[in-house]
Amino acid sequence: MTTQIDEAARHKAKMEKRKAVQDAEVASKTVEKGLLIVNTGPGKGKSTAAFGLALRALGHGWRIGVVQFVKGAWETGERRALEAFGGQVSWHTMGEGFTWETQDKARDIAAATRAFEKAKELMADETIRLIVLDELNIALRYDYLPLAEVVATLSARRSYLHIVVTGRNAKPELIEIADLVTEMTLVKHHFAAGVKAQEGIEF
Amino acid sequence: MTTQIDEAARHKAKMEKRKAVQDAEVASKTVEKGLLIVNTGPGKGKSTAAFGLALRALGHGWRIGVVQFVKGAWETGERRALEAFGGQVSWHTMGEGFTWETQDKARDIAAATRAFEKAKELMADETIRLIVLDELNIALRYDYLPLAEVVATLSARRSYLHIVVTGRNAKPELIEIADLVTEMTLVKHHFAAGVKAQEGIEF
Repeated sequence: MTTQIDEAARHKAKMEKRKAVQDAEVASKTVEKGLLIVNTGPGKGKSTAAFGLALRALGHGWRIGVVQFVKGAWETGERRALEAFGGQVSWHTMGEGFTWETQDKARDIAAATRAFEKAKELMADETIRLIVLDELNIALRYDYLPLAEVVATLSARRSYLHIVVTGRNAKPELIEIADLVTEMTLVKHHFAAGVKAQEGIEF
Repeated sequence: MTTQIDEAARHKAKMEKRKAVQDAEVASKTVEKGLLIVNTGPGKGKSTAAFGLALRALGHGWRIGVVQFVKGAWETGERRALEAFGGQVSWHTMGEGFTWETQDKARDIAAATRAFEKAKELMADETIRLIVLDELNIALRYDYLPLAEVVATLSARRSYLHIVVTGRNAKPELIEIADLVTEMTLVKHHFAAGVKAQEGIEF
């Protein structure tokens, strides 16, 4: 019995110390600002986490914008779900599918350019607090957009506007100006076991 | 002019080849099954990606379940947003906050046990197609739940039920039985620059 009480007391003391460290840590952060968030890497969850963040923002009553730079060939579950939020969401699917689907570089460049124009439009809309630029990294990787202009535009965002950029192979110049960068790494994938892309999971 | 046409033709040929590879790849995957998905690692986006997946599932008209094993001290944006889907969402916040907030191990164990009972209840509900077990990895890491029992229960899930487990330090035994494991790695974090946890981003 004594040992159990000792154990509980030890746990409590340890956790009190941990809480003090945690509280000091939290108190030391004082800056509030619109973040540039980049989700990159070869793993899953880059766009999914961006839409999860959009969901959180919607829960706080914010208006959000979405520009999809590459996808667009299919109707996705997340798009349909976000329609439930009506005017709180401004969704723009500007891409025409993957580059190997269109097979036309000039068309891909034109689509990326239109998508970036739409992004700038949303950035100018002061009712919007968070914008997802889905797969922008892909457009930058293939040089479909001028990197310097994109970096300058994103850097010049309003002070309280959060922007989330997704896609593999984020450019170092983008990582440089970002506040939060997460790399999604693949540890294990069901495709390797012959499992196909399924509704509700991949789209 | 000729060079531009050559360039376009080369691009088209390259993309045709890529599409063929891609199509063959897709055709080779035939299995459909309920996946066990694990989002782990020290980076951001583990829970956020899980809720993004929940959003996608909702867009397909599925019913989903959520059990939060640790969080619970605060009202989150994602929870409020998912309330918009009414009866499509069965949400259960069972945790009482971080271990350093409760400072009581017995209470943490009791909360984790109740949360796992709720998870089993949702797993038995055949109208539910996807369940998020948010921060289950934390409960397993602190040995608040018997690992072998959790592994056996998750392995015995219905064939079409997807389960998403989140939290740092996923146990190797869980990774072993998972279909899809993603590690979120921190590349750059705004907390390091003194930026505080903000509404709409961290909660």
